[in-house]
Order: sequence, then C-alpha cells, then structure tokens
Amino acid sequence: MFNEERHFEQPIRWAMVGGGRGSQIGYSHRNAAQRDGLFKLVAGAFDLDPQRCRDFGVNLGMDAERCYASYAEMFEAEAKREDGIQAVSIATPNSTHYEICKAALEANLHVVCEKPITFTTEEAEELKAIAASKNRVIGVMYGYSGFPMVQQAREMVQRGDLGEVRVINMQFAHGFHNEEYEKNDPGLKWRVSPEVSGPTYVLGDIGTHAFYLCEVMTGLEVDRLSCMRQSFIKSRTPLEDNAHVMMEFKGGAVGTLWASAVNAGSMHQQKIRIVGSKASIEWWDEHPNQLRYEIQGEPPRILDRGMGYLYQDAEGVAANRVGGGHAEGYFESWANLYHRFALAFDAADRDDQETLEGIWFPGIDAGIEGVRLCEKCVESADQNAAWVEYK
Amino acid sequence: MFNEERHFEQPIRWAMVGGGRGSQIGYSHRNAAQRDGLFKLVAGAFDLDPQRCRDFGVNLGMDAERCYASYAEMFEAEAKREDGIQAVSIATPNSTHYEICKAALEANLHVVCEKPITFTTEEAEELKAIAASKNRVIGVMYGYSGFPMVQQAREMVQRGDLGEVRVINMQFAHGFHNEEYEKNDPGLKWRVSPEVSGPTYVLGDIGTHAFYLCEVMTGLEVDRLSCMRQSFIKSRTPLEDNAHVMMEFKGGAVGTLWASAVNAGSMHQQKIRIVGSKASIEWWDEHPNQLRYEIQGEPPRILDRGMGYLYQDAEGVAANRVGGGHAEGYFESWANLYHRFALAFDAADRDDQETLEGIWFPGIDAGIEGVRLCEKCVESADQNAAWVEYK
Amino acid sequence: MFNEERHFEQPIRWAMVGGGRGSQIGYSHRNAAQRDGLFKLVAGAFDLDPQRCRDFGVNLGMDAERCYASYAEMFEAEAKREDGIQAVSIATPNSTHYEICKAALEANLHVVCEKPITFTTEEAEELKAIAASKNRVIGVMYGYSGFPMVQQAREMVQRGDLGEVRVINMQFAHGFHNEEYEKNDPGLKWRVSPEVSGPTYVLGDIGTHAFYLCEVMTGLEVDRLSCMRQSFIKSRTPLEDNAHVMMEFKGGAVGTLWASAVNAGSMHQQKIRIVGSKASIEWWDEHPNQLRYEIQGEPPRILDRGMGYLYQDAEGVAANRVGGGHAEGYFESWANLYHRFALAFDAADRDDQETLEGIWFPGIDAGIEGVRLCEKCVESADQNAAWVEYK
Amino acid sequence: MFNEERHFEQPIRWAMVGGGRGSQIGYSHRNAAQRDGLFKLVAGAFDLDPQRCRDFGVNLGMDAERCYASYAEMFEAEAKREDGIQAVSIATPNSTHYEICKAALEANLHVVCEKPITFTTEEAEELKAIAASKNRVIGVMYGYSGFPMVQQAREMVQRGDLGEVRVINMQFAHGFHNEEYEKNDPGLKWRVSPEVSGPTYVLGDIGTHAFYLCEVMTGLEVDRLSCMRQSFIKSRTPLEDNAHVMMEFKGGAVGTLWASAVNAGSMHQQKIRIVGSKASIEWWDEHPNQLRYEIQGEPPRILDRGMGYLYQDAEGVAANRVGGGHAEGYFESWANLYHRFALAFDAADRDDQETLEGIWFPGIDAGIEGVRLCEKCVESADQNAAWVEYK
Repeated sequence: MFNEERHFEQPIRWAMVGGGRGSQIGYSHRNAAQRDGLFKLVAGAFDLDPQRCRDFGVNLGMDAERCYASYAEMFEAEAKREDGIQAVSIATPNSTHYEICKAALEANLHVVCEKPITFTTEEAEELKAIAASKNRVIGVMYGYSGFPMVQQAREMVQRGDLGEVRVINMQFAHGFHNEEYEKNDPGLKWRVSPEVSGPTYVLGDIGTHAFYLCEVMTGLEVDRLSCMRQSFIKSRTPLEDNAHVMMEFKGGAVGTLWASAVNAGSMHQQKIRIVGSKASIEWWDEHPNQLRYEIQGEPPRILDRGMGYLYQDAEGVAANRVGGGHAEGYFESWANLYHRFALAFDAADRDDQETLEGIWFPGIDAGIEGVRLCEKCVESADQNAAWVEYK
Repeated sequence: MFNEERHFEQPIRWAMVGGGRGSQIGYSHRNAAQRDGLFKLVAGAFDLDPQRCRDFGVNLGMDAERCYASYAEMFEAEAKREDGIQAVSIATPNSTHYEICKAALEANLHVVCEKPITFTTEEAEELKAIAASKNRVIGVMYGYSGFPMVQQAREMVQRGDLGEVRVINMQFAHGFHNEEYEKNDPGLKWRVSPEVSGPTYVLGDIGTHAFYLCEVMTGLEVDRLSCMRQSFIKSRTPLEDNAHVMMEFKGGAVGTLWASAVNAGSMHQQKIRIVGSKASIEWWDEHPNQLRYEIQGEPPRILDRGMGYLYQDAEGVAANRVGGGHAEGYFESWANLYHRFALAFDAADRDDQETLEGIWFPGIDAGIEGVRLCEKCVESADQNAAWVEYK
Repeated sequence: MFNEERHFEQPIRWAMVGGGRGSQIGYSHRNAAQRDGLFKLVAGAFDLDPQRCRDFGVNLGMDAERCYASYAEMFEAEAKREDGIQAVSIATPNSTHYEICKAALEANLHVVCEKPITFTTEEAEELKAIAASKNRVIGVMYGYSGFPMVQQAREMVQRGDLGEVRVINMQFAHGFHNEEYEKNDPGLKWRVSPEVSGPTYVLGDIGTHAFYLCEVMTGLEVDRLSCMRQSFIKSRTPLEDNAHVMMEFKGGAVGTLWASAVNAGSMHQQKIRIVGSKASIEWWDEHPNQLRYEIQGEPPRILDRGMGYLYQDAEGVAANRVGGGHAEGYFESWANLYHRFALAFDAADRDDQETLEGIWFPGIDAGIEGVRLCEKCVESADQNAAWVEYK
Repeated sequence: MFNEERHFEQPIRWAMVGGGRGSQIGYSHRNAAQRDGLFKLVAGAFDLDPQRCRDFGVNLGMDAERCYASYAEMFEAEAKREDGIQAVSIATPNSTHYEICKAALEANLHVVCEKPITFTTEEAEELKAIAASKNRVIGVMYGYSGFPMVQQAREMVQRGDLGEVRVINMQFAHGFHNEEYEKNDPGLKWRVSPEVSGPTYVLGDIGTHAFYLCEVMTGLEVDRLSCMRQSFIKSRTPLEDNAHVMMEFKGGAVGTLWASAVNAGSMHQQKIRIVGSKASIEWWDEHPNQLRYEIQGEPPRILDRGMGYLYQDAEGVAANRVGGGHAEGYFESWANLYHRFALAFDAADRDDQETLEGIWFPGIDAGIEGVRLCEKCVESADQNAAWVEYK
C-alpha cells in the first residue's frame, strides 16, 4: 500500500523554468512534483514575458518576488536566499535545455529536464560530467516509465520469465499532426523547426519514449541501426513527421521502432512488445494498468496492476497508489517518477551513494541515450537509410 | 485545458474522520481533496486509538494538537478556533455515517461522506433537512462519477443522441471475495456484518456506484423493482455477496443491476450500457477514457477523452487535466469531484445559490437514492424477490 | 485433425421443407448438411409456390420431380421410392414446425428442425414420444452449440475447473429491429405475428440460443423464474422485442437472460458468462474461437481454439477443422452439428443405442426445454413478471 | 445474399497433387473447392506412396483407378479420358511447385498452386508465359485475400477514403516454432530445409500473405527495401525464422513487414495497417469480420462484415454467405477464392476475356510478386541488410 506519510522534514524547495500559462506539460510537472508533498514550488521563470510570469506565479499562490524574468536571474537570486531553491525542472523548448541545465547544475541545483536533454551527445556528456563534479542529480522526464506495469515488465525480463530476448518492437505513433496544423499551433510550430526542436521531430519527441521503455525493460544496447525518415507534410523538411527504424542489439536481439505524428486516426499508440525465447510481453500506454503476458503453448494472460501475482519488487517506491481494478494513469506515472527524483536528490544531498544507487529513475544516462538515438537515426537517414554503428 | 490557478484566496480548512493508517479510502480522500489546492487538511480524527491518530496525523505533517481522539472532540475544539475547520470528510464504517454527518452539520461544517450516507432513507432525509437549515452542503462520494466520459454520456443522453432511453443494464461485479476472506481481512469483516455495514453488502458497497451512474446519465426514476440476493459464502447471511435486480423505470424503460463480490476472476467489471431508440452507449470504469457509442445501422465508435468531437460542456469544471491519449484514472475522477465540492462549499458560504445550483455534483439526493435502492432491494428480497414499488 | 474421409458407404438421402430462394437459413442448412458429405440433398418442398420450388430445386441441381409442392406430397411420394429420403430438415415459419415434424416422424424420417420445435411443451413431448416409438432421431438447430469452444466450456464446467457454479448471465441482444422494419421485411413480419411466430418473439427466436448454451455448459435446471417483457415497438404487442429474465436454478445457482432485438447499434451480443466458486468463463459468439477463463487470484487467460492446452475430449466428433489461429465460424458450428446428426441418425438406423447415447447433440429434450422457457416466461410476464415455478 | 444456385451445367472436373492424409492444407483445398459445387474432385496424386494415395482417395469416395502414383501419370492418364480433369490444385512442398505447375499447364489444365509458386521470378515468369500461350489460368492460394473485409479495405483505399496512402505496416508473426520443433514435425522439417522450402522460410511461408494483402488493398509497388533476417534457432540457418523489412514504395509511401515464427505466445498476429493522409484502416485475420476505420479527428469505427454501410461492390462474387453478426472464417475466405477461380477458369474456357478481366483473384502476377519479395529480401539480407532496388 502506498505510504503517503511524510518522507522529509521539509519538502524540497523547487522551481520551474518554462511551463507557464497554457502549458500542459507545465501543469504535469507541478502536479507530479507536489503530489506526494516531497517538493514545494517556491520560485519560477515560467515565461519569457516578466509580467505574464509574475501573474501566473501569483495566481498559483507564489510570492511575486520569486517569479523571475529569466532562469539566469532566478538562479542568481535564489542562490542568495537562505530558503533558496534546491531543485529545478526545465520545461522549455528543446533548444534551451542544454544551457539551462548547465546553468542549473553550476548553481548547485538538482535538475529535472524534459527530453531531449540536449541536441548532441557531447553536450549531454558534458552535463553528466558537471553533475558528477557538483554531486547533483539529473532526472530526465520519460514520463511513461513510472507506471507500475512498466516496472513489472522490467522485473519479468530481468528474472528470465521471457527467456532470452529476441525481438523488440516499439512504436509511438499518433495522428494528431497529419496536416499542417503548425500554422495555427505555436507548440507544434517550434517542434517542427530544427533550430528550436533540434535534429528531429517525432524521433526525439515521442520515439525516445518508446525506446526508453525498451531500455528500462530489457537493458539491451543497440549495435547498429537503419532509419528511414520522411516529412509527409513537406514544409516540415528536414525534420521528419514519420520514421521507421530497424535495430540490431548487442547479443543478437533485433527490433523496430515506429515514430509518427501522421498515423491518422490514432491516439497515442505507444506500444512495446518484447519477444523472448519462452514468452512475450506487450504493454500499451493508453491502457497502462494491463500487461499482456504470452507464454508459448499457453493461453495469453492479462496481468492487472495491483494484484498479488505480480512481483512485489516491481512496485518499488511510490507505486500502486490504489488497489487493482481502479484505473491509474499518466499523472500517477509522473508522480511516481518525481517521488523517485525526490528520494534521489535527498540521497545525493546526504551523500548517501548506496541509497542513490538503489533508486531506479530515468537519469542522465537515459537522457544521453535518447540524444544518441536521434543522432544515429539522422546519420542513417541522411545516408539514404544506410546502416550505422550505434556507438 | 485544466486551470490550475488559485480559485480561492485560501484553501478550505478541512478535516477527516476515519481514513487513518492503512486505509486506502483515506488516502484517496486526502489525495483528491488537496490535488488542486482547494482544501487543506488541518485536523483529523483518523483513528479510534488516540495515539495512533496522533502519530498518523503528525506523520502527515499536521499539528499534534489537531489530531483528535474522536470526531465529537474535534468538532467541539475546532469550533472554538479562529482557524477552525470549515469542512469534513467522513470515511468511517457505514454504521457511523449518520451520527457523524449529523454532528458535523450541526457543527456548521460542510460534509463529504462515503456512501451509504445512512442506513435508512428517513435518516438521510433528516440529514438533508439539517443541511438545508444550516445552509451546509453534503457531498456523497460516488467516486466514479467524476470521470469526464461519464459527463459526456450524461450530455449525450440529455441531448437526445440516443433517442428515447429503453434499456439500462448496470453491473459492478468483482470476484475478490469469492471465498471467506473476511476471516483475515478486517475491512471485509465489517462490510459483511449487518450491524456495521447496514442492511446490505454488495448492493450498497458497489451496486449503488453503478446505479448512480444510471442516475447521472439518464435521470430516470425507478418505478418498481425485483431483487434476488444471495450469500454464496453462507456465513455472510443475512447480507448478500451477490444480487441481481430487475427494474422498471417511470416512462417505460427497463433495466437490470448485477452487484457481486463473487464474480471469480474479475477485477471491477463496473459497466453501464444505455440503450436508446436510436443508439446505445457503454462505459467501463476500468478503461474510463473510452466511451462506446453505437448508432443503429452505423459502425460502433469509440469516443476518447480529451477529443474535440466531444461535447465541450461535458468537461464542466475540473475535467480533462491532460490531452487525449494520455490515460486519466480513478484519482482524477475523485479530484474532479472534490474540486466541485469545493466550489459548492464556497458558493454556499457566499450564499450564491445560482452558482451552487449550476454545479453538478453527487449531493444528498444522490445519497438518499442510494439508501433507497438498498432498502427496496432488501424489501423485495425478503419477500422472495417479489416486485415492490420504488417510492 | 479433422477426418474428412468417408464415414458411410453412401450419404444419407436428405430433403428440406422450406428454406427456398432468398432464405439465409435454408442455405445454412444445405451448406452444413452437405459439408462433410454425410448428407445429400435429393428432394425438397422449398416453397409454398410449386413453380418457385421446382425452379429453385432444379437450379440447385436436383431432379424436378423431387421438388414437391408440399411436405405432405413429398413424404408420400418419397416413401414409395427405393431411393426415398431418410431424413428431412424443417426450416419453415414456427407455426408449422409441429405438424411437419409429426408428419415426418410418422413417415419414418429422421428430423432436423429449427427452434422452437413447437408452440407448447405438450406438443413437443408428443413429438418425443412419436420419435421414440418410431426409433427416429430429432435434432434441433441450436446452431451455436457446435463451436468447439462451447464444447470446451462444457468440459471445463463438468470437470470442476470452475468449482461450484454460482451465477450464469446470458444474453442475445441485437439491435436490428429497433424500428418497425417489419413493414418492409416479410421475414420479420411473421416473427412478430403471434399466430405464426408463437407466444414469443425474441425469447424464442434468440433467447433460447443463449439459454441452450447454459444447458450445454452447465446442465443446470431452472427452479423458478421471473420475466419482464416489452414491445418497444408498440405494434408488436403482445409479442416482445425485449425481455429480461431472472432465474434460480436447482442447487442454488442464479442467472439472468437478456434477449433483445432493440439493442441499438449491436450486432449479436450473444454472450454467456458462467461464474463458479473458483473461476469464471465467458464466451461470445461473434469471436467464437476464444474463451475467456478467469481463475480468481490469477490473471485472466484467453483460450484459443485448436490449441494443445484444451481438453481433447472437447473436440468430440467433427471439431477443429483447421489449426489454431485460423478463424472458424458459424458455418463450421452448423456443419459440426449436422455431422453429429448424421452419426446419430446412422446409429439409430443400426439400432446402436450405445453409440447413439455417446453422441452429444441438441435433440428433442433441448427442443422441449426451449419451448418450456418461452412458456414459463410468458406465464410470468402475463402476471406482471411474477415468479413462476419452472416445472 | 449469397447465391448457392448452380453456376455451371456441370462442376469443373478437378484433381489434386499432394494434400493427402494428415494434410491440413489438403483438406482446406478440397473443402473450399467443393463448397459451392463448382468443382468436383475426380482424381488425385495425393501421396508419393501409391498405396497410401489410393487408400486415401478411395476413402474420400473416389475411383481407385483415378488415384495416381504421380502427377505425371495422372496428367497423362487423365488427358486420355473423355471425362478427364480440367483443373488441378497443387499442395506439395515448395520445391516441386514449378515443375508440377509447368506440367499441368502443358497438359492444358487450369492450376491452383500454393505459394511460393516457384523459387525464382524467372521460373514464375516462365509459367506465366506458358499459361498465356495455353490460355490457362493460374490461381495462387493467398488464402486470406478472400475475406469480404479485405475486399472492403481495397474498395476504401481505391475510392480515396484514406486519402493518399502514406504508411503500410504488415505483420504475420506467430510463435509456434520458437523452439526446434522440426525434430518431430516433418511438415516443419521441410519448411526449414532450403532445398525443399526454397530461399526463405517465414518470408515466403507467411510474410507473403501479409504482403499480398498490401498489394490487394493498395496496389502500390515497392521501390526498394532493406531486410534483416535471423534464425533464432541456429540450425535453421541459412533460412530465417524471423525477418523485418523496411520498404519504400513508388510514389512516396513507406512500410514495414514483420514475419516471424518465434513470436512466442502468439497465434497468427497477421495484421495490416494502412495509414492515409485522412484516415487509417486496420485488419486482423484472427477476427476477420471486423475492419477498424479511423478518420483523423473522429472516433475510430469498427466496421462489421455484412452491414449495409459497406461498399456493396466489395462483396464481389461469393462474398457474405451469412448476415452480419455471424462469424465467417478461414474456410469462407478459401471458398470465396475457389469460387472466383472457378468463374475465371470457366471464362477462360469460353474465351470470355472481358469476364475474365472482371474477376478479381490472386493470379500468376500475385505469385510472381511473392517470389520477388523473397528474392529481394534475401538479396538484401545477404548484404548485411543493405537497401536493394525492387525491380
């Protein structure tokens, strides 16, 4: 059963960069971070417009003086306060992630950042090095990895329930951008602009989510890949609104990834299927409380969250907030991740490496691999979908 | 898009009776009430054991002095404080609901109560009268009615999309108590004990949830009903662990209700199907973001939460916290209801009847009808399932 | 694996009454009977119009002289031939079943008849007696009972996989007649006319199918029942286009049956769920190759036709014509039944009672129980849905 | 409604090569060919063992003298009879298809052949040329293409319901051979032996089925492809038990194909999803009566076979044998194809080119493309999955 009781004497003092009025992702961060009382929002640089930032923050109940015109100003001012922020979440357009993360780490803050954490693996590695030198923790917001059934899947693979992993098929393929909606949608506009979005659109924006599920569940490393990417809406070139990837993993498994924003008529269609020598599992983020488990020669089983037949270790911290049958969703997955981030930040602050290592969460390495996936897919696609080595 | 900004200058000062350590329903109330910052938990009589109550409250971060040994003590002490509580939620065993509600109303508190609100309709009517005289609001925790797709269904029926309603089939039929698990489960033990649970087990405990969905969606009134109820676990007699009801509604529609705790192998199986002269809808609480819509002569459609083709009025307050495709769940439904309770309490405090009447929420009338359903089902079952008039 | 090799030296010489041009059910009988080469259509009284009968028969490749103007003429003429018919299938409107069955038995023919076999149980019992005295076999066309997964379900219940049966919920509820389509549909016109259809419409027409699945799977006998029936299309009165039944079975199980032709937007929705003390099963005729199996405390399993984990006895004769994964359907279910009818007819001809008793098929007793269900439902409904004893 | 009446004065005299006792595919051919009375099995070379062949044929009710020891003998002997065979179906291991087809055509027979029709496109083109010179028709047994909903999908794409086709994802991925079952399964043994099976295992055996659905539905031509193939059971090398293909089609669409025999726990999982600029469709052979239709911005619809809202042209000949709601299956798809083959053979015999061209069926061109797919996939896989031009 979920333990809602106090974990820390005081919640972690926390700020946001970006995620102001009208931002769905901003609400998701605030909701998740504060869900279990482990973080308290005390400062923010929510908006490039200082007045809008202040209005928004005040309306959230914050002090006007802690609503800042820029992240730089915030980091500087907060550093001077006794009650200054200890952690910051970054929910700005992609092109700014690197510089804000860097500044935050240098300001001795723990960081939660939206993916992609940077445009290049070099930049991401640099952030990792800074974090290490500062003893700070970076969490990367792979928001679907906090579902208890994702953890159950991870346990099942690790314990050998599937046998040897042979095939992994991943997809995150929605249809919401099957026409040139960016004409009237600023949030989409920047996502299809390379200078803001980075080297990819759907590969980075959604494909990395499904790819991260594969990492979490199997731990396998890609050996080489081939990627074909297209813009069915021509104006999005050079960024892609659809991509297919074939992968060979080290050790012999193979896989595919389909990332698309033009899968007309679909909602998310984020799914992962892992085929092992003995059994397969399949998970779908739109019905996240179920995990399909198919043992060869036996009837398929539908595992349900919260049931006694699951691996109890899979719950880990912060999982299973309510009994089986009740639907948990996206917000619980996010909250579970922020719960883990909080424990990790706290462990780092206490220099408790053992605890820190025992907490599973999507950290800087997950961020680096997401950036690498995009880099390598672009490298392949730019060579007419030639196969490229992964590392 | 969900508006998370501050609604009140200060959150409503709020307490709980019951729902202490180990209580899933207690966590659900606290989580939902505080989700949008509209309530703040400041006092509690969480447990009959004063020390356990205090420990639990303190661990939640509360003042020890506001963790009370009894609800009576709490209502008395808080009434004397300037910053005393304004509202209370009651999550105790059924037999105590009536007296605690009554005491709370008499202490000038708004109330949220678990169902069944009382054992008899007379008692429930009495609470209604007290609330009216005190200008207090009672919310009843039909926790599944806050899902946006339930509101969508309501809109569809009201706008005539289904034509005239003909048949309504309801069920809430889990299998978790298919054996005599009460031997080792205190929470089940009291539910099958008539002196604590009241005149019914599954009819009141879960059947009323599905029945309330029917009320919300169709607004129809039962004319007469026949109920057969059984205890497949004999020791539960006279309470039932399975019941089937046939109903005739005023105006000619007919319906059925299946409530069960012995539906072996099932999770919730809370479903409602409404058949109209032109079309049918079907909703299932385990996949609450979808609503099946079947127009005769056309292919069935699967409506998804958050999409532009839904009735925007159906969102009402506090609905759709995240875009379509992402799964919302049980906690959002509860939070949506508490959000509405807060607005209603506030409107009542400001004597703003117009606003109050404009806010849909499960109130005392919903509570009364749930109690009546149980009364009438027992009356029928006790006469060998004879048909009985509803009012 | 299905054995298509010859079972008899010569196929059974077979005729039809009814089922002429434009009759879907006629095609179904001809297709099923001849599928395995066990019957050969050699005569017919397909149509009340002699010319139309002859045209149709000739177009099927039959001798014109064996296309008869009436069943009476056919039975008389065929009796005089050395190669005269041995069996007849009756696919005429309900009101004629009794007299044609009687005449056929008296002409020493084995019979396959559509349900309801008669309008009253007395008539049906009379047919049973005649058949016994003539050593003839009557098969009743409960066409859904030939699916292999129905047999699997039967085996599972009989072997105790579900424990003690507690609850059985049945439904066959389509929406095709949600308006007064009989104005332009002769096949529907007679079905809603009591003089032709008999005492019921949906109860007999489709409800008996689902009820028979219950008989096949559980073998339970009804103790008493209550039925409410309605005509949502008023002109269909006194026949019903919707009915709900509650049942108590001997031994303590309870059940419900929903039969409807106004379930707007639905295809068949013929489903049966059997809840036992340990596990439940659920089967749906629109996806007949799957059987859901839910053991309490374990994840639900989806059993698939043709797999090695099924009970091999469940295959019985003529089941599993192709390996698992391939979809079998309605025609295979019918063919499986006709295959069994052929074996039964042959065994009777050889006076091989042991073999005859070993062949499961829907016979006259199944026919009687279907008629009884309708009788008792009408008896209840006519008394304002009062409970009535079943036998 | 299906017209079962006689199409030809006499059925086509028909023989089989292969498909003897114990052969599932043999039964499927005989069942389908004779379902509508358009073919009559009069001769066979069912088995390499003459005695077994004769026993089997006689047990099917055939003349012993027309049960031949070899196809060569059969073609020769039958050619001399007045009532000699007119058509032959070939259900032998892959390596013999070419020579038997060639001999059959040269013996002036129409042919139905299992895929792959040959090992090389050159051979297949040769067969095409012989057929043309002899005015004979070759049908290739892509047995899933006869489903009415496959034809509906074809109509929808052709009429532009989906807009421009952008993405096609195909798969046929079962798990039945996830271990080295060929040790005890002769039917699998030859399928994984290159000398008998040809250059591929799963690509040819099942992948071509899904690929053919794409051809039927979209008519698109592959421009280039990349294929990675593996044997997870090492002893199957050089043949593959798993393959992934990425394709670019002429005109800009892209696609993927997954063929696998090691998809542990799965039945068929033959699925195709076609994404257009406006809408998508998805079809699954295990539930072949449904077709999912998703228009962007609208709720997904589930189309059901037999309903009035479908394109009536999609029925074509021999489709929809029973009304919607009833499940049709694999045998109906096969029978629909054989029905079309019969009409085509008859048209060719009558030299009625117009009729012949109006009959859609999987013919020699479909056979050639299946062989080409395998050739090109092997060519790519052999170059470490390099991209290869398709034609």
